[in-house]
Amino acid sequence: MKKTETASASKLKIIPLGGLEQIGLNITAFEYEDSIVVVDCGLAFPEDDMLGIDLCIPDVTYLKENISRVKGFVITHGHEDHIGALPYILKEVNAPIYATKLTIGLIDHKLEEHGLLKNVKRKVIKHGQSINLGQFRIEFIKTNHSIADASALAIYSPAGIVVHTGDFKVDYTPVFGDAIDLQRFGEIGKKGVLALMCDSTNAERPGFTNSEKTIGKVFDTLFSEHTRNRIIIATFASNVDRVQQIINSSHKYGRKVVVEGRSMINVIETAQELGYIKVPEHTLIDISQLKNYPDEKTVIITTGSQGESMAALSRMAQDIHRKIRIKPNDTIIFSSNPIPGNEKAVSRVINELEDKGAEVIFQDVHVSGHACREEIKLIYSLVKPRYAIPVHGEPRHRHAQAEIASELGIPKSNIIMFHSGDVLEIDHESAQIKGHVQTGSIYVDGLGVGDVGNVVLRDRQKLAEDGIVIIVMTFEKGTGQVLAGPDIISRGFVYVRESDILLEDSTEVLEDTLDNLFERGVRDWSKIKNTLRDNLSDYLWKKTKRRPMILPVIMEV
Amino acid sequence: MKKTETASASKLKIIPLGGLEQIGLNITAFEYEDSIVVVDCGLAFPEDDMLGIDLCIPDVTYLKENISRVKGFVITHGHEDHIGALPYILKEVNAPIYATKLTIGLIDHKLEEHGLLKNVKRKVIKHGQSINLGQFRIEFIKTNHSIADASALAIYSPAGIVVHTGDFKVDYTPVFGDAIDLQRFGEIGKKGVLALMCDSTNAERPGFTNSEKTIGKVFDTLFSEHTRNRIIIATFASNVDRVQQIINSSHKYGRKVVVEGRSMINVIETAQELGYIKVPEHTLIDISQLKNYPDEKTVIITTGSQGESMAALSRMAQDIHRKIRIKPNDTIIFSSNPIPGNEKAVSRVINELEDKGAEVIFQDVHVSGHACREEIKLIYSLVKPRYAIPVHGEPRHRHAQAEIASELGIPKSNIIMFHSGDVLEIDHESAQIKGHVQTGSIYVDGLGVGDVGNVVLRDRQKLAEDGIVIIVMTFEKGTGQVLAGPDIISRGFVYVRESDILLEDSTEVLEDTLDNLFERGVRDWSKIKNTLRDNLSDYLWKKTKRRPMILPVIMEV
Repeated sequence: MKKTETASASKLKIIPLGGLEQIGLNITAFEYEDSIVVVDCGLAFPEDDMLGIDLCIPDVTYLKENISRVKGFVITHGHEDHIGALPYILKEVNAPIYATKLTIGLIDHKLEEHGLLKNVKRKVIKHGQSINLGQFRIEFIKTNHSIADASALAIYSPAGIVVHTGDFKVDYTPVFGDAIDLQRFGEIGKKGVLALMCDSTNAERPGFTNSEKTIGKVFDTLFSEHTRNRIIIATFASNVDRVQQIINSSHKYGRKVVVEGRSMINVIETAQELGYIKVPEHTLIDISQLKNYPDEKTVIITTGSQGESMAALSRMAQDIHRKIRIKPNDTIIFSSNPIPGNEKAVSRVINELEDKGAEVIFQDVHVSGHACREEIKLIYSLVKPRYAIPVHGEPRHRHAQAEIASELGIPKSNIIMFHSGDVLEIDHESAQIKGHVQTGSIYVDGLGVGDVGNVVLRDRQKLAEDGIVIIVMTFEKGTGQVLAGPDIISRGFVYVRESDILLEDSTEVLEDTLDNLFERGVRDWSKIKNTLRDNLSDYLWKKTKRRPMILPVIMEV
Repeated sequence: MKKTETASASKLKIIPLGGLEQIGLNITAFEYEDSIVVVDCGLAFPEDDMLGIDLCIPDVTYLKENISRVKGFVITHGHEDHIGALPYILKEVNAPIYATKLTIGLIDHKLEEHGLLKNVKRKVIKHGQSINLGQFRIEFIKTNHSIADASALAIYSPAGIVVHTGDFKVDYTPVFGDAIDLQRFGEIGKKGVLALMCDSTNAERPGFTNSEKTIGKVFDTLFSEHTRNRIIIATFASNVDRVQQIINSSHKYGRKVVVEGRSMINVIETAQELGYIKVPEHTLIDISQLKNYPDEKTVIITTGSQGESMAALSRMAQDIHRKIRIKPNDTIIFSSNPIPGNEKAVSRVINELEDKGAEVIFQDVHVSGHACREEIKLIYSLVKPRYAIPVHGEPRHRHAQAEIASELGIPKSNIIMFHSGDVLEIDHESAQIKGHVQTGSIYVDGLGVGDVGNVVLRDRQKLAEDGIVIIVMTFEKGTGQVLAGPDIISRGFVYVRESDILLEDSTEVLEDTLDNLFERGVRDWSKIKNTLRDNLSDYLWKKTKRRPMILPVIMEV
């Protein structure tokens, strides 16, 4: 565990508390003297080697140690990787939350689930509005993203202005609400901006990201081409504008809409309540009413666009959905791209659906929510920051943005590539990493938060690889004589049928080892256990080229 | 286990023994009366849920049961998913192997590793040449692919001709040897072809696959732009033409070439011996000589283009390679695309390399070895088969080819979508699935072939998810009195530190359960074990929302 150092006072400090190594744990502390403002508080989904882990949240030891200075959480938008850790972190660092209306609506839903609604202050902020938090003033600037009500932040401090884009794209013709407030970016840029922290996710992609509205036309075309089919559309639960466009096309083509999948239903309810989605009367129907309409007059909007094994579409594909069976006459549209790492899971679902005779459409029915290279250049050119601090996305994406910043004339020394926990001290004279605070990823497994660490994970990996072999014996107290055993039990190692001889021979190895140890007068349990483990391990490796976990258990009576 | 049925005699039967569900296990039996010819014999790499498995080979029970009729293995090309299972299968079904020169060279290397070189007949066949195998005549037709010496097969039987493309693309300007023999496809087509079994891998992609030669120009450009950098290029070990082009550019720009990574060295040695690659004198140097040349005069060709954790490039990226350290002045080129499922692993390596300051180039330095939609249409139009049997690729890709065949006018009833084990009886009158033979995926784990099955895998999955909790007790013989325990030992479940109270309380649960059982006079061990397991499982679920494997062990003294 690294010691928490504090850097010098009376400087603006920017401390990423996560998100640079593990995608999703977005949380950044801005600090000036007695004031700390936290931007975003996201969760991450586990990597492949984090066996059995449900999700990861950031380690906020630094905030806990400085809790009296934490003025609040400022949230850019309502995606899980920006709000998901709030219920966990607020239990340890309770501070007011500031965000736009839909974002607060989604946060409220989370807090309610965790029974925190009464204990936490939340305040809805409008785009264009500012709030004062200690030494900071934070202005919310309208942006576009794959969820409504996304904001960039202008963070005013005595040391200068930092512009943080959050996740964003430039959409000149958004489905709901206004386009990104480019004028304001320009205006603030003219004042002189110390640093720009800009979304890097699509920094490797050339050109511009298409407007969300282009997808509405795609739906219209697909609906007009499939008038005889039932249509099932999978997309991201939180993409309210996408759902709006599906509802629009459905209404236009006289179809009823069913929404399926818990997270989808939640988000749409919240969006409807708050006025972010407009559903024509009698368009939405309950899943139980589906049987009252002919297939070609229905549309099912569903979760599962990433191939998540428990999501509604995956259950339909596997024929284990309780209400919906896939039919050869179905047209299934993936209005999404696979997030890196999910390609195979998505492919598996497509294979299953096509094997049932359904038509699956998965190309060109999605636009990204993130800015491509030309949009990033536009924001840099409006803001004209002294320092560039690429954020969001994998290291490769941040390196790609660093290159863009360099092309635009920002000196390499003014492009900051930092790591989680780095304390960046920054003003118009210099930007330097001064010290480091504790950060990391805390694993949530079932009800446990932080009770699974690397030792447990290493054990799970070993168990997953070659299983476990348990050696049990009973010794007599005092004499140390073997009363029972050594017996061998294995799980996940090898077929019992096949292992008969192997385990018989193994028992012999253990008995020989014991004889030898006793002859040499060894009576120390830990020495006995280690020798048994090593000898059996060597034997099994020689015979099978596998290394199961070996666990000797000695009882004494 | 399914019963092996045999369908009617005196018909051509096509029996896919693998490869349709699990990509890689390519093996198809062609059967006519007393003759069986096997096309390809590939291995598959394990899916994510096959924990600890090294590789998968096809279940060839059907061939074993009909071994006297097996006339030989005919191999289309030297990739692992077409030759990899040979050493395992030949141990059970020894029959001669027929293939082109490079393919036999690569097979020989495998057989030698398994000590089989002396026991198996191999025969080198030239393109254009035919061999008689029982009732069959097999003609090898020149194609192009991402490995040299690939062949399509014309399989002549008394029931008609079947054309099998193998994996292929149309390359009018190949780097080595001739272009695909389109004339011969046309000529055979004119004779009348019963069925076309065509590669579906790229059937979702529009247009044509670019010529391998286009990549040579890309290398020239990259070399001319990076005259001050060391260049490291990762590509597929088996892509000999790619390696040739790297060597060509290196020679042109006065650089020495080091080959790194075991499989890369093997393939290049075989290709050099057999004349499939031409290396100008003094171009290749040993890795130990690297220090004698300035960085900008060297090129390293390496394995690891798929982010494989033990491959050379991954080891360089992690700073654990024994001979090569990545430097900020390195230019690293991925001459490959990630195979589906490997995206995240590749991204991880790119992140690590860029974090070391190296430049990584990964776009547009690769062409596929598989035919896109227009090439598939071309082959169909030359062969004009009565029946279309899409092969290779995932189900979604085979469905995409089925659509192409349909567009080209083949009636839907003549497009055959079958599954592994299906016995397809086919002649000019009809094509029908008649019966089913045993097939499947046999797991190879260490030295064990088939000794890990689904029970073991399910145990490994459970162990991986939440670990194991072991309950140990010693009972007195006769009385059944508890002499020691119950004690609890856990691995992979929860931090020991955190688990103290949990395990203490668990022990109490067990003791209460035992008291209760004994009071009720229960003395049956399996009843005792089950009750202990269930009660502890319920308790742990309530407390942690986890379900570790629970293993009660009772000893008797």
